Amino acid sequence: MTRIALSPVTAVTLSKDAPVVEDAAIHVENGAITYVGPAADAPPFQADEIRGGEHLVAMPGLINTHCHAAMTLLRGYADDMALEPWLQEKIWPFESGLEEEDVYWGTQLAIAEMIRNGVTCFADMYFFHRRATEAMLESGIRACPSASIIGVFPDVPGQIAEARSYVSDAAGAGDGRILPCIAPHSLYTCEREHWTAVVDAAGELGAPIQTHASETRTEVEEVRKRWGATPIQTLESLGALDVPLIAAHCVHLDEADLEIMAHRRDGRSAVRVAHNPTSNCKLASGVAPVSELRRRGIDVGLATDGTASNNRLDIWSEMRLTALLHKAVELDPTSLAAAEVLEIGTLGGARVLGLEEKVGSLETGKRADVVLVDFHQPHLHPPHDVVSHLIYSAQAADVTSVIVDGRFLYDGGEHLTVDVERAMAEVDARARRLAAAAEE
Amino acid sequence: MTRIALSPVTAVTLSKDAPVVEDAAIHVENGAITYVGPAADAPPFQADEIRGGEHLVAMPGLINTHCHAAMTLLRGYADDMALEPWLQEKIWPFESGLEEEDVYWGTQLAIAEMIRNGVTCFADMYFFHRRATEAMLESGIRACPSASIIGVFPDVPGQIAEARSYVSDAAGAGDGRILPCIAPHSLYTCEREHWTAVVDAAGELGAPIQTHASETRTEVEEVRKRWGATPIQTLESLGALDVPLIAAHCVHLDEADLEIMAHRRDGRSAVRVAHNPTSNCKLASGVAPVSELRRRGIDVGLATDGTASNNRLDIWSEMRLTALLHKAVELDPTSLAAAEVLEIGTLGGARVLGLEEKVGSLETGKRADVVLVDFHQPHLHPPHDVVSHLIYSAQAADVTSVIVDGRFLYDGGEHLTVDVERAMAEVDARARRLAAAAEE
Repeated sequence: MTRIALSPVTAVTLSKDAPVVEDAAIHVENGAITYVGPAADAPPFQADEIRGGEHLVAMPGLINTHCHAAMTLLRGYADDMALEPWLQEKIWPFESGLEEEDVYWGTQLAIAEMIRNGVTCFADMYFFHRRATEAMLESGIRACPSASIIGVFPDVPGQIAEARSYVSDAAGAGDGRILPCIAPHSLYTCEREHWTAVVDAAGELGAPIQTHASETRTEVEEVRKRWGATPIQTLESLGALDVPLIAAHCVHLDEADLEIMAHRRDGRSAVRVAHNPTSNCKLASGVAPVSELRRRGIDVGLATDGTASNNRLDIWSEMRLTALLHKAVELDPTSLAAAEVLEIGTLGGARVLGLEEKVGSLETGKRADVVLVDFHQPHLHPPHDVVSHLIYSAQAADVTSVIVDGRFLYDGGEHLTVDVERAMAEVDARARRLAAAAEE
Repeated sequence: MTRIALSPVTAVTLSKDAPVVEDAAIHVENGAITYVGPAADAPPFQADEIRGGEHLVAMPGLINTHCHAAMTLLRGYADDMALEPWLQEKIWPFESGLEEEDVYWGTQLAIAEMIRNGVTCFADMYFFHRRATEAMLESGIRACPSASIIGVFPDVPGQIAEARSYVSDAAGAGDGRILPCIAPHSLYTCEREHWTAVVDAAGELGAPIQTHASETRTEVEEVRKRWGATPIQTLESLGALDVPLIAAHCVHLDEADLEIMAHRRDGRSAVRVAHNPTSNCKLASGVAPVSELRRRGIDVGLATDGTASNNRLDIWSEMRLTALLHKAVELDPTSLAAAEVLEIGTLGGARVLGLEEKVGSLETGKRADVVLVDFHQPHLHPPHDVVSHLIYSAQAADVTSVIVDGRFLYDGGEHLTVDVERAMAEVDARARRLAAAAEE
């Protein structure tokens, strides 16, 4: 394994004791961080690779807690439409033509985009999860892929059997970078018996559940009608909160929901929220009560959702939007300050995925998921406050190097594990074919 | 003058007849666009400089209709604070130490950032306007700088005399790239006699007025108390709508305000709005009713405000936020579609500044303010819809070349008119000095 020294850098560690260390050194050995602190105090270290410079900021990799990666195929295919025609006239007809290799290449392109944007870990939920997992393994990124359960599709028992088998097969793959999950799509697309079987499987296998919950008002009303309670309350009654539950969106919540979500389980909240600000705005779903969730100790991470409703896979944009949107909606300029938002985009995301012992901050003993950001640019001067700059001024393109599990995946403008040229060409050709078929 | 051919490019022209032309050519001669259309139909042309490629998108330069450029000195100095302590404890003490050369270098850095972000024209309002105008002239950017009138500062008659003299001196400078304005700061910082004198001067000199209006609820209440009417109604009664009036913010408006603003004057609305979505969110001022303004035919452009409340000078971010924020607030996913937002960021901005005959779209006869964007990147594939990609997927760093008035200001990562290294170093040193002085 490569021994990496990042020195000198400004280290934005997200650790409690020393959140920002100037003139820092970071040592990486066997994929783990073995030192982070003042360069002057660093122990002797023989590095194979050294990166450093006054203008470089090192930070934990960004974490994307909810994504449908292969939807890169649909980027820009349908925007600015009402939900029903958008789904029924555009998204579903397009998706109905999807083949396994489409998902593989769509996932490849998504991973390339995320890696160069400094995303070192993402949660995924889409079709053909086994082939998508291969793209994740090949790229070296950290990921929580999932086997989807969709009740409106045929053979749900078969889907659940496959989910069990997939979770067993994929657990710990890629030197532990892959954490397989089970993803019942939602309460409005899965029946009670599906949910019961999923909760049983997840409990037995120790697999997290990923699902959509309380995204739109319509959904909450529909679930109330069908299940007799809100989505969160229904999930609780199904036992889904007794396993690690990653719930995407959580926009429309009542007081009882919030109380249920805040209950502690293994040091985390009973529901862990993947907050998708861009997607919730673009689809006009509403604005999730993030400040309230945080006040109650509910774990929140950031997420992009799929590119059909974003259209980027860029946690920088989600961080900036989080810092801006909630101030405007709450009419409070002190809401979601820069340091808090940075925490949500990194360590908060790790907590949502149950990975905070492993990643999410730059601390000795954690796996080395590290991003270098180049501050030698007009929009990142003067250097009043590095954390403010990361949230309000930086953009995805400022990332120069990305390390996952102690391995460079992106460095100086070059991808080291993904053939981006081929991924772009494949996705272009496949998207053209799928669009033509959908419009027939 | 350099003769420039951009061919082949995808031309996003913003013209009514052919808003997007694939495989296009654009010819630039004597600073003006002499051809834009299919490359196959282009007349013979001897170009000194050619840029082209399948992956290049040409679009009109972005327009920033409200800025305090030299506030780059304050970027990241104070964030996430309530308005009063933010102004009184941080911003004003810092600004009180400003010297002319600080403003010069702060403006230089702002211009460098804007140019590389594809902003080809900006409106400015700050101290030491003459020295700031020199930075604009040296850079080759198009600008509407203004002489500020601040009633709470000494010698307002002197300020107004200087504004008259400045407007006369600067009119048409830089081959017509400079359009000098007068900027009474607001109704709550200027008295009736100041406003009357400004309106007289602006009318005589044919200079536009730039001001702040209806930014916060507190301001509207204060103006109601002091002037007996809303800001817009007060401005009307002062005759300020009989000259071109560029009003920044316009967040809190009532029905009478909207009716007044929509009156036509010389083919434009009586009040032209500089919409500052990031700043309005960050300061928790509220959300301007942009869809309603547009429905009523009120001209709207985008703006960054100063970097203390943004903290970037990046119209890409403002376009994306405009497309997202208003959908969320209006609960309508069809609000402010990509093409409409692109229009606001370009031609709309030109209309706000009264420059739509000159710039804002790629059309024969207009001045050549053109931006090239590199689409050969993961986040801009597949090519379903170029306009969607420009709004939802592109970022400032995707800009590769920037032409203003037929001259390259930025090309292939290099600034051709601004010494960015020096500007960053000067701003860093000056910001350090000002921060230290402010904290004494």
